[in-house]
Amino acid sequence: MRIALLAGDGIGPEITAEAVKILKAVVSQEIEFDEALIGGAAWKVTGSPLPEETLKLCKNSDAILFGSVGDPECDHLERALRPEQAILGLRKELDLFANLRPARLFPELQAESPLKENIVTGTDLMIVRELTGDVYFGTPRGQRKDDQNRREGFDTMRYNEDEVKRIARIGFETARSRSGNLCSIDKSNVLETSQLWRTVVLEIAQEYPDVELSHMYVDNAAMQLVRAPDQFDVIVTGNLFGDILSDLASACVGSIGLLPSASLNSEGKGLYEPIHGSAPDIAGLGKANPLATILSGAMMLRYSLKREADADRIEKAVSTALEKGARTADLGGKMTTSEMGNAVLAALN
Amino acid sequence: MRIALLAGDGIGPEITAEAVKILKAVVSQEIEFDEALIGGAAWKVTGSPLPEETLKLCKNSDAILFGSVGDPECDHLERALRPEQAILGLRKELDLFANLRPARLFPELQAESPLKENIVTGTDLMIVRELTGDVYFGTPRGQRKDDQNRREGFDTMRYNEDEVKRIARIGFETARSRSGNLCSIDKSNVLETSQLWRTVVLEIAQEYPDVELSHMYVDNAAMQLVRAPDQFDVIVTGNLFGDILSDLASACVGSIGLLPSASLNSEGKGLYEPIHGSAPDIAGLGKANPLATILSGAMMLRYSLKREADADRIEKAVSTALEKGARTADLGGKMTTSEMGNAVLAALN
Ligand SMILES: CC(C)[C@H](C(=O)O)[C@@H](O)C(=O)O
Ligand SMILES: CC(C)[C@H](C(=O)O)[C@@H](O)C(=O)O
Repeated sequence: MRIALLAGDGIGPEITAEAVKILKAVVSQEIEFDEALIGGAAWKVTGSPLPEETLKLCKNSDAILFGSVGDPECDHLERALRPEQAILGLRKELDLFANLRPARLFPELQAESPLKENIVTGTDLMIVRELTGDVYFGTPRGQRKDDQNRREGFDTMRYNEDEVKRIARIGFETARSRSGNLCSIDKSNVLETSQLWRTVVLEIAQEYPDVELSHMYVDNAAMQLVRAPDQFDVIVTGNLFGDILSDLASACVGSIGLLPSASLNSEGKGLYEPIHGSAPDIAGLGKANPLATILSGAMMLRYSLKREADADRIEKAVSTALEKGARTADLGGKMTTSEMGNAVLAALN
Repeated sequence: MRIALLAGDGIGPEITAEAVKILKAVVSQEIEFDEALIGGAAWKVTGSPLPEETLKLCKNSDAILFGSVGDPECDHLERALRPEQAILGLRKELDLFANLRPARLFPELQAESPLKENIVTGTDLMIVRELTGDVYFGTPRGQRKDDQNRREGFDTMRYNEDEVKRIARIGFETARSRSGNLCSIDKSNVLETSQLWRTVVLEIAQEYPDVELSHMYVDNAAMQLVRAPDQFDVIVTGNLFGDILSDLASACVGSIGLLPSASLNSEGKGLYEPIHGSAPDIAGLGKANPLATILSGAMMLRYSLKREADADRIEKAVSTALEKGARTADLGGKMTTSEMGNAVLAALN
C-alpha cells in the first residue's frame, strides 16, 4: 500500500507525523508513505500550491493522508495561487465526490461542547457532503460589468442527476450501515438545483426501502443541529450546505481537534484529513492535537485499504487514551503533540 | 398611519391579533389596520398566494405587519402557488432589501437556550441580511437537460456592486448605532460573488472609519455562532448565508418564539414578521406565543413609523411580563396566546 503523505502548512507536519507513527505501528511492513508538497509550502518552493508532481503522486497512490493547508504568508496572493486551491484542485482532479464527515460526542469530552449536556448527549452523526459539484465548481462564474456598467460577481449553482444519484447512494448505503435513517438537506422551497436534488433523492430512495428518508430545509437544519443534534444519524447534502453544516456539527460536539474526514471517489480512493485548519499560530510548537489526523488515518484503513479491524483498533486506542486522561492544550491538558501520539500508541492492543 | 395587516396561515391570525392589541394601546387613534389575504389562506380564496389586491394594499401602506405563511394543504401545489412564494414576492416587489434579524438572549429565558450558560450569556446580535438578491433571485435558473441528456437543476448566484453597497451601508449604520463592530460574512475563498461582496464592503468601509470591520467565512461563522456567539455584534451577509445564519443564531439564543424581524426598503417602508413559522399543528388552539409578533410591531414603530419611544415601551413591557413569569407553552408555561398579550398590555407604562 502506497500512501501519498501531504503534510502541508502550519501544524500539518507535526500532526501527520503522529498519524504515520500510529499507522506504521498498526500495519507495519505493508504500508509506505511518499511525501509531497502541497499548499503554501508547495507554493514557496514551486510557485504552485498543487504542483504537477504532487498531483501525479496522488493519482498513483492508494490513498492520500493530508495534514492541512493555509498560510498567512499567502494571503496577498491571487486566488489561483492560494493554499485552499490545492485542496479544491485535488478534490476535482481525483473526482473525490463523497466527503464523509462524522461528528460525534466523545463522552470524556462532554465539557468541551458548547451545548448543554442534555442536548448534546448521544450525538453521533455522519454528514455525507457532495464535494465536486454545486456552486463550488459550476460555470459560468466570474466578475464582469453588467448592462448598466456595474461590477457584478456571479457563480452558477448546479447539479445534474448523475451527480445527485451517486452521492445519494453513498448516503443511503451509509444510513443502511448505521441506524437506517437518512436526512437529505436542501433549499427546495427556493432553489431549482435543490428541487432536482430532492426529486432524484426520492427516486434513489426506491432502491433502499429499508432506509427511512426525511427532508429538511438547510435553515431549519442549522437550527435543529443546535437544538437537538441527536435527532440526526446520516445527513446527505450538497457541497455548499455541507460545508456550513459539517463545520456547525463539529462545533456542536465541541471536539474540533478530534474530527477526521474522508473524501472518496467511486473506486474507493480517498483523501483523509482532519477537519481543523493549519493553525499557524501554534505551528511548530508541539501543541497541536494530532487525534483528528490519527482518526483520519483510521478512516483511511477502513475506506480505502479495507482494513476495518485495524481502523477499529486505532479508534479504540484513541478512546482509551482519552479515558486515561490524555489531553493536549486544546482540551485543557499539557501533553505535546507527540506525547498524545505516544499515548495512543501505548493504548493500541 | 395605515398598516397592512397580513395574518396569513396557521397561528398567523392569533399572534397578529395580540400585536394589534398592543399597537392600538400604545399609539391609539393614529394607527389603522387594513387586512388582506396572503399565503395558503389567499390561495384558497383567490387561487394565488399573493393576490393583486394584497400587493396593492401593501404598496399603499406605511408598513406591513405579517403573521406567517405555510400550510400543509398547499404542499402538493406547484411551487409558484405555494405560500412561501408570497413572502418572496412581497420582498421583491416592494424592494425590501434589508432584513434586520436581532438575536438576543432574554436573561429570564436562559434555560431555553441549548447553549451552556457561560457560552450564551451576553449574546445580543443583529444580523443584517440582504433580501432581494443572491441565488434566491438570480437568473438564469431552472431545470433542463444538459448536453449528455441528463436532467440538471441550476441557479445563478449573483450580486452587483450597487446591491452590495446599499446593504453594506445598512450594516455599517447599524454597527455605528450599536457597539461599532461589523462582521461581514462570505465565502470569498471559493465564490466569485463573495469576492465582489468583500471588495465592495471594503470600499464602503472607507465611509465608516469609526466602525471596526472584520470578515469571516460562512463555515467558520456557523461554528463561531455556536462556540462564542457573544463575539458578534452586527453581522452583514447575503441572502442565502443570512437565511442559514439567522436561523442558527435564533436557535442559539433559544427563544424562537420571541424573535422579530424587519424587512426594509430604501424609503424605510417595511414588512415586520416573527421569524418563526405558521406552526399548523397548534393553529387555532390559543397556544402560540405572540411575543415575536408583538416585538415585530415594536420594530415597525421604530423603523417605519419613527416612534422610537413607543417601540421602547413595548419592548420593556415584554421584558417586564417575562420577569413577572408570563410564559406560554413553548416556554414551559400555561398562558394562552391572548393571556400573554394581556400580560404585555398590563406591563405597558
Ligand atoms: C478551504 C475551503 C475551500 C474548504 C471548503 O469550503 O470546502 C473547507 O472549508 C472545507 O470544508 O474543506
Ligand atoms: C420561507 C423561505 C422562502 C424564507 C427564506 O428562505 O427566505 C424563510 O426561510 C425566511 O428566512 O424568511
